[in-house]
Amino acid sequence: MRSLVLVGHGSHLNSESAAAVYKYAELLRSQGLFDEVVEGYWKEEPSLRQVLRTCTYTDVTIIPMFISEGYFTETVIPRELGLGYQGVVPPQGVARTLGGRTVRYTLPYGVHPAMGGVILERAREVLPDAGGEDTALIIIGHGTTKNENSNKVVHQNAELLRAQGIFSEVHALFLDEEPKVTGWREKVKARRVVMVPFFASEGWHTLETIPEDLGLEGTVTVFSGQAEGLPEGTGEQTVYYGKPVGTHPAVADVIVQLAEEARGASVTGGDRAPEHRAAWDAFTALAASESGVRMGEIMVTPHGGLFEVRHALDEGRSSETLTTLVTPDGLRDHTRLTEGGEHRPVHTLRNLRRGWRAVLSAGDLQRAIHSLYPAVIEEGYALHTHSLRSTPWPTTARRQTGRYGRVQKATPEQVEHVAEEVCGGCLKTRVWAGQRLTQTFFGGVPGAIPCAEACTFLVAEIREEVAGKRGQGSGHSH
Amino acid sequence: MRSLVLVGHGSHLNSESAAAVYKYAELLRSQGLFDEVVEGYWKEEPSLRQVLRTCTYTDVTIIPMFISEGYFTETVIPRELGLGYQGVVPPQGVARTLGGRTVRYTLPYGVHPAMGGVILERAREVLPDAGGEDTALIIIGHGTTKNENSNKVVHQNAELLRAQGIFSEVHALFLDEEPKVTGWREKVKARRVVMVPFFASEGWHTLETIPEDLGLEGTVTVFSGQAEGLPEGTGEQTVYYGKPVGTHPAVADVIVQLAEEARGASVTGGDRAPEHRAAWDAFTALAASESGVRMGEIMVTPHGGLFEVRHALDEGRSSETLTTLVTPDGLRDHTRLTEGGEHRPVHTLRNLRRGWRAVLSAGDLQRAIHSLYPAVIEEGYALHTHSLRSTPWPTTARRQTGRYGRVQKATPEQVEHVAEEVCGGCLKTRVWAGQRLTQTFFGGVPGAIPCAEACTFLVAEIREEVAGKRGQGSGHSH
Repeated sequence: MRSLVLVGHGSHLNSESAAAVYKYAELLRSQGLFDEVVEGYWKEEPSLRQVLRTCTYTDVTIIPMFISEGYFTETVIPRELGLGYQGVVPPQGVARTLGGRTVRYTLPYGVHPAMGGVILERAREVLPDAGGEDTALIIIGHGTTKNENSNKVVHQNAELLRAQGIFSEVHALFLDEEPKVTGWREKVKARRVVMVPFFASEGWHTLETIPEDLGLEGTVTVFSGQAEGLPEGTGEQTVYYGKPVGTHPAVADVIVQLAEEARGASVTGGDRAPEHRAAWDAFTALAASESGVRMGEIMVTPHGGLFEVRHALDEGRSSETLTTLVTPDGLRDHTRLTEGGEHRPVHTLRNLRRGWRAVLSAGDLQRAIHSLYPAVIEEGYALHTHSLRSTPWPTTARRQTGRYGRVQKATPEQVEHVAEEVCGGCLKTRVWAGQRLTQTFFGGVPGAIPCAEACTFLVAEIREEVAGKRGQGSGHSH
Repeated sequence: MRSLVLVGHGSHLNSESAAAVYKYAELLRSQGLFDEVVEGYWKEEPSLRQVLRTCTYTDVTIIPMFISEGYFTETVIPRELGLGYQGVVPPQGVARTLGGRTVRYTLPYGVHPAMGGVILERAREVLPDAGGEDTALIIIGHGTTKNENSNKVVHQNAELLRAQGIFSEVHALFLDEEPKVTGWREKVKARRVVMVPFFASEGWHTLETIPEDLGLEGTVTVFSGQAEGLPEGTGEQTVYYGKPVGTHPAVADVIVQLAEEARGASVTGGDRAPEHRAAWDAFTALAASESGVRMGEIMVTPHGGLFEVRHALDEGRSSETLTTLVTPDGLRDHTRLTEGGEHRPVHTLRNLRRGWRAVLSAGDLQRAIHSLYPAVIEEGYALHTHSLRSTPWPTTARRQTGRYGRVQKATPEQVEHVAEEVCGGCLKTRVWAGQRLTQTFFGGVPGAIPCAEACTFLVAEIREEVAGKRGQGSGHSH
């Protein structure tokens, strides 16, 4: 039995960042090759600090959902996971035993050799007969930044495809380094030019800066399978501009290959992790009891062999006036934003929307609760059984690097001041800051949820405070 | 049986604006001259639109807690109360029958002749032997603004005190009109100069602009009973700068006089208003039932002949870990700010702090619940009994004047867009916008609370939207 973890960057600011990871997780779940597919994020929940604890099985494979190696895959993610490993990840990945689990950490999907095939797929979407005498392929990369070594993998893919001899020319061009994409006209002789952005997702670069640098007029809206017209001043050349590689469904196959390679000779797989099992068994038993269980803003009650989850403020509301959801993914999508349409990077802020009920099997309940309140069952049960370890602020601060390194300069007063404001709307009790919590929702107190360490949302706010950039309060905009 | 209503301006932004009104309400309650003292605000809750409904008795006297007549006392307050009267209020006040209640609306306390005595009290605090040959009194007013006719009452008080012959000179000087306070040295001959600001409260003007205009160095911190030193360059004159009249305890006596004068020949008083009584009786019965009642974020349970109120997220929490409150005022003060220390102009936003319990008699329960969720019992019961009248947006918009008049230009889409964001965090269901609410907390749904009309908080946000000044969202400041 194996858990697959897809790790994304996530965002404190917008809800779209996590969507690509969701998509691949769903695709892989539907393929059924793994017993569980879990998502984890640096800047959303479940956080990298919590995600291992939320895995059902003792055999865990972790894939960084990044297009290239760099600061995130070699420093941030291993550090936050507590892998005890930093630096370049070898092709077979890194294996460790952590908290009774065998954890395998792989290279990011983007550097896998199979990505060459994905580039070709993207090229053929905009030009089905791509290839032959008079057709050039340009792979467009960002260029190496402080955080990512993206040029290496783009050059490698260019070589690989050049060696296959499908195109008359293959070039690797970049936005921010030589050879630059702006100079493509001097380099490319072929009459048909297919361009594929080696980017993780559709965004500002693929939709705006690249088309601009190419000299394509205005903003180009890119549709799969639709060719761009002849750009002005290009004489006889026609440009076919593809979608970014990182959103292609075939990336799911790359993920599976990475996971298999990381597994190596091991074929036994894992069992259910005992602490995880105990926490969920205890919670499910409470939920199945006559009065159900209240946790944070939700309540779970037995419902004719199934379970019903709803907002506690909707207790007693007739079901016809509520939106009924029947899958964990449906519930996740329905509750991703606040009633006011805002992103919810921290799920335990007291802003869960109302007006829905989810009716779920016992099998789906775990994933549904996990999406509403990631890691809350596991950490709540750990506190309930006196086994929760919390991380005091100085330890959290020392771990930070890069732009967050400066939080080490925050005074205890600054940390407390920012935490009071930021955490004021959160259900959790800051056990890491010495706040006492003697009961939990396992003991009948719905709002009693431990916070074992400062989350990245708070870390980011403390960084703003230290930098003197933090505004007054976090209230309404007037 | 009479209800006294003190009406303040209130503020969407800071929690101090309402504090002065609280203070006088408490003082008057302790004197026991009225059977009930209620507060109402333009920009806080209970709003002027709701406050009459929250009065227990059918004989209601309303005092505007303003220092002078003007736009608020003659236009905004009568309009929001639905008095059916606009303009200058006669000395005996305005009496109307509204919703089965006899409502008496008076002049603001600041224009009552007894304020002359309050000025004298303030003068004697800083100079106990104020008066005699060589002592001048300067009453400092703001000067008439767009919203208030403050000069008339300052001149009247100066005349009154001049006629009493206590001081060798009495002057009325102003910040923003002639004769200006900056010219005091040319006007005043006396060696001792007592200055009393005719202002409603301590603030920017009394602490900063007046001392600056007087030529007193730097920022003057004003303490009652403490005399200022000799200002630089004033030769032989010593300035004694007093506290503002509007915060003197004797204002409570002025309020009582105003209320008595408004009462006129009527001595019978009122009874308990039947709708009000029915709502509270129904709620108290629910609270006294074995399982108590949940309303919004709170739960009320019977507690050995008394009632216990706590946050529903604190259900089951052992009492020793909670702060126990035993008075309605204690509860109000404890829950005025969010856990993050933010002002709560709208009490039904889902940001009620946790960690407390209030143990209260049946008699105190009404005022305690009223302070947590003003007017919610009355309006919830009205919906429960199918008698709630809601006010559609166009009617609310048409009523607005002054800087809020422009909300009439808001499109239905703008209103809905802003409401979705602003009201997203509110417990209430916008019945005024056509949202359906078929149950209430009287029927067992804790979060089902009707919103009968757009509150001033939303009106202000819609104004910002129309003015193009509204930022993106109302989320955290990063």
